Amino acid sequence: MAESVNALLYHLQERKIQVLVSGEAVFAGEVRNVERVPESEIGKRIDLIIAIGGDGTLLYAAGLVARDGVPLLGINRGRLGFLTDVLPQDMITSVDHAIEGRLEADRRPLLSATLYKANGTTSEGLALNDVVLQKLTTGRMLDFETRVNGRYVNTHAGDGIIVSSATGSTAYTLSCGGPIVEPQLDVIVMAPICPHTLSDRPIVISGRSVVEVELLEYPETRAELTCDGRVLGCIEAGERLQVKVAKESITLLHPPGHDYYKLLRSKLHWGRGSVER
Amino acid sequence: MAESVNALLYHLQERKIQVLVSGEAVFAGEVRNVERVPESEIGKRIDLIIAIGGDGTLLYAAGLVARDGVPLLGINRGRLGFLTDVLPQDMITSVDHAIEGRLEADRRPLLSATLYKANGTTSEGLALNDVVLQKLTTGRMLDFETRVNGRYVNTHAGDGIIVSSATGSTAYTLSCGGPIVEPQLDVIVMAPICPHTLSDRPIVISGRSVVEVELLEYPETRAELTCDGRVLGCIEAGERLQVKVAKESITLLHPPGHDYYKLLRSKLHWGRGSVER
Amino acid sequence: MAESVNALLYHLQERKIQVLVSGEAVFAGEVRNVERVPESEIGKRIDLIIAIGGDGTLLYAAGLVARDGVPLLGINRGRLGFLTDVLPQDMITSVDHAIEGRLEADRRPLLSATLYKANGTTSEGLALNDVVLQKLTTGRMLDFETRVNGRYVNTHAGDGIIVSSATGSTAYTLSCGGPIVEPQLDVIVMAPICPHTLSDRPIVISGRSVVEVELLEYPETRAELTCDGRVLGCIEAGERLQVKVAKESITLLHPPGHDYYKLLRSKLHWGRGSVER
Amino acid sequence: MAESVNALLYHLQERKIQVLVSGEAVFAGEVRNVERVPESEIGKRIDLIIAIGGDGTLLYAAGLVARDGVPLLGINRGRLGFLTDVLPQDMITSVDHAIEGRLEADRRPLLSATLYKANGTTSEGLALNDVVLQKLTTGRMLDFETRVNGRYVNTHAGDGIIVSSATGSTAYTLSCGGPIVEPQLDVIVMAPICPHTLSDRPIVISGRSVVEVELLEYPETRAELTCDGRVLGCIEAGERLQVKVAKESITLLHPPGHDYYKLLRSKLHWGRGSVER
Repeated sequence: MAESVNALLYHLQERKIQVLVSGEAVFAGEVRNVERVPESEIGKRIDLIIAIGGDGTLLYAAGLVARDGVPLLGINRGRLGFLTDVLPQDMITSVDHAIEGRLEADRRPLLSATLYKANGTTSEGLALNDVVLQKLTTGRMLDFETRVNGRYVNTHAGDGIIVSSATGSTAYTLSCGGPIVEPQLDVIVMAPICPHTLSDRPIVISGRSVVEVELLEYPETRAELTCDGRVLGCIEAGERLQVKVAKESITLLHPPGHDYYKLLRSKLHWGRGSVER
Repeated sequence: MAESVNALLYHLQERKIQVLVSGEAVFAGEVRNVERVPESEIGKRIDLIIAIGGDGTLLYAAGLVARDGVPLLGINRGRLGFLTDVLPQDMITSVDHAIEGRLEADRRPLLSATLYKANGTTSEGLALNDVVLQKLTTGRMLDFETRVNGRYVNTHAGDGIIVSSATGSTAYTLSCGGPIVEPQLDVIVMAPICPHTLSDRPIVISGRSVVEVELLEYPETRAELTCDGRVLGCIEAGERLQVKVAKESITLLHPPGHDYYKLLRSKLHWGRGSVER
Repeated sequence: MAESVNALLYHLQERKIQVLVSGEAVFAGEVRNVERVPESEIGKRIDLIIAIGGDGTLLYAAGLVARDGVPLLGINRGRLGFLTDVLPQDMITSVDHAIEGRLEADRRPLLSATLYKANGTTSEGLALNDVVLQKLTTGRMLDFETRVNGRYVNTHAGDGIIVSSATGSTAYTLSCGGPIVEPQLDVIVMAPICPHTLSDRPIVISGRSVVEVELLEYPETRAELTCDGRVLGCIEAGERLQVKVAKESITLLHPPGHDYYKLLRSKLHWGRGSVER
Repeated sequence: MAESVNALLYHLQERKIQVLVSGEAVFAGEVRNVERVPESEIGKRIDLIIAIGGDGTLLYAAGLVARDGVPLLGINRGRLGFLTDVLPQDMITSVDHAIEGRLEADRRPLLSATLYKANGTTSEGLALNDVVLQKLTTGRMLDFETRVNGRYVNTHAGDGIIVSSATGSTAYTLSCGGPIVEPQLDVIVMAPICPHTLSDRPIVISGRSVVEVELLEYPETRAELTCDGRVLGCIEAGERLQVKVAKESITLLHPPGHDYYKLLRSKLHWGRGSVER
């Protein structure tokens, strides 16, 4: 990957474009002639962020610029991702097109998570895919209550719950029995993780909803909250998570002719070898 | 049930309210002093339709008045239904409240289905819950293609496909792995029935979409289309189904304090006996 | 396909081996110099049956010889099937090896189905994959009771039920949420089709069990029974299906080094592109 | 619960039966006149173990006596468990019957788990329900390979894997899409937890198999092994878990007329309110 990064850097320097790199970004080889910038500053100093890697890398990049409105271009390393839909051989062309404003801008809502701790402190995070409340203790279930707009929904027992955007519906939620949701829909998916009760199914609610999850009293229960896989904090019995659609959003850049269903067909191996049963 | 119907009729006659009964409605016992009206006329002559029975009865009643905008009150026979949420003991009170305009009006979109036959004819139907394309021949799979707004989605093999409203998400779709969808959401769910490919999962799309399903050439394949369980017609290879949200809608009447999540908890046995694993 | 069939016929005639063809077998082109034999006689007159096609073709061939103990070789038309695991390019070699007794013999149990009609008549069938009781009427559910060894199991509502062998676990049952079962296990899988109750899950029972399914009284309910997709008969309310492991079995022939898990990996697209979420 | 425990103790003392209590057992109130015995010794000193609580309590008791062949009676606290099927009101009678040898003995196989660490050490554990390998790090997937009898099965990505007995099929496995398995069947179920690949389904294999799971190299991956919820140890990349049926088994005692399917119907809310869709 270092070669493709260096090829890109060389190309951008030829074009007299200044390149900043996140201070925490890790490369397989040496990457030359770049300015390293702390994660907390990078979003304020750039006009475009390029993520080279898989969907996880793009989620990391989205986290860096979520509060700054910087558009995001995802280059995959060999095959398509749900979020990184430019292949390596098209990298230079797509970056040029991004700089020239010739790519399709695809605005995606973000989720805003707030963790209310028993001691009165709060933690906040943004997520493009999902906010996950999950047990930390193997061999134990969590008990938790959910509310939507203040109305009691259910008392769940299981491994936790995913609060997902439409964009995140093809990520962790899909592994938990959630539906595929067209990414532009203004909805939230609440999907229990390995629920004890088999009828405790994913629920699709309005994107204007406020979701609350409260962990119930149970001995030895510990759970952790993550936003797109980044730890937001631990949650204990009696503490509460609130999730809603954020006022911020993320703009993904796609090559012209981007086709969501083509991506689904490719990623989910649809339509292959399906005639015989 | 005949007793409760007769009690209701007596009450309405006391109140000098004229009662019409669908010509096809079947009662367990004798029902006296009512005017029988053909199905095709009843929607034009009434101000309120009362369905006494289960959700299937309410779907039948909805089909009678879908094109006429008549509000609908569903009385269940002993336990709650997703659509019929008035219990027998509350029947008289709820009917009085309905007449006096004191119930909550809950507008639900309808789906409009059109079947395009190879011979150039078309058939149209409305559905509150779902439009279902399903094989008629046991021991065989159907092959069919789906499109959304003209864009190709997937080639499926399996028992068929459900195109469901949010309201219908807790009906047949739920048995096919679909999500629960808040009934007021303006979305459509496409759920394959027993799909051959395990990643062929339900998809939630915008309520402004046009869904098309085309049956592919395959020897001995026959399939049938139903709207809320009523047969719309047979579909053969090369023929096409189109589904979109209808311009008509249905108004369900609920007692005050109607709580969708309470209904889910009751119908899906949520939260019972869930502490131990 | 006619070319490969003719190539095989030429090869077998060179080897002075007499070839019989089922009277009902259909070929894409002309097939010369073969003796056509009625389906009911063929099993008694041959030492080996070769099925060229997909798993459906092999199930058809298995049905022809199930009562006669004739071994079965399945040639696929281009890609692997669960049952037909010889590729076209290996056809001649595998047929020679089959004739010379150099293939692996893989004995698979068959299921025996008996339909008890209300008029006192019975129908019997054998199945390698599954016995399926399924609704014929779209837009309606079936209600039915299940028993194992005479003990009441459950009252189901839904589209029907599959009684599957271990071999059939990767066929229709898998589309209905059933598990993958190693084919040599002496078990039966009972898998409800689109069950109304979400906790009505597939059950794995001993291969020494007797399964009974009785259709309950319900207006307008019609259902059909199939064995490996072949119709055994219609079943009506009050009538009963019995399934158990048959005394007969089928012997599939595999090339040396046949690997069930490799087949699963290939057919189910396992292990591809699975690093990122 | 302390009252029922004290009532039982009083009854046993009246009958001149010596009572030992696990040193770690916790009671809601004071429990008098019992001898506390360390966990490691109790199995060697008793003829019967009585677990009062839920299935979790019974699994704890099973762990105490698994290597000693002591029969086990499970008393539930108010409703039936899959393993604790004596209700509080029947406690005294069932204990008397257990002492008098009048209960049904139900032998259940145990799973034996061995963790092979990179440093050459091993840890061993027994499980009645399941051996679970699960990620400890939220927001990350595990990558792992499975083998059965030394043959490669699949490379999985997800939250982990459950290796379950037939008895454990109605526990955690069921929440992960596994089938219900009759408890007397000599099989093992391998069920991936929230697998990334949707076709990565539970597999039922022979009880004479040896299952191996190896964690693959992946940065920041940590996972934990549990036997019936008790931690066996941490597992890191390159380390290996082996599971097979143990030579030891557990004997559960049931009241006469114990009916597994009745228990399923009760626990899974089968057959209720299932007529309408």
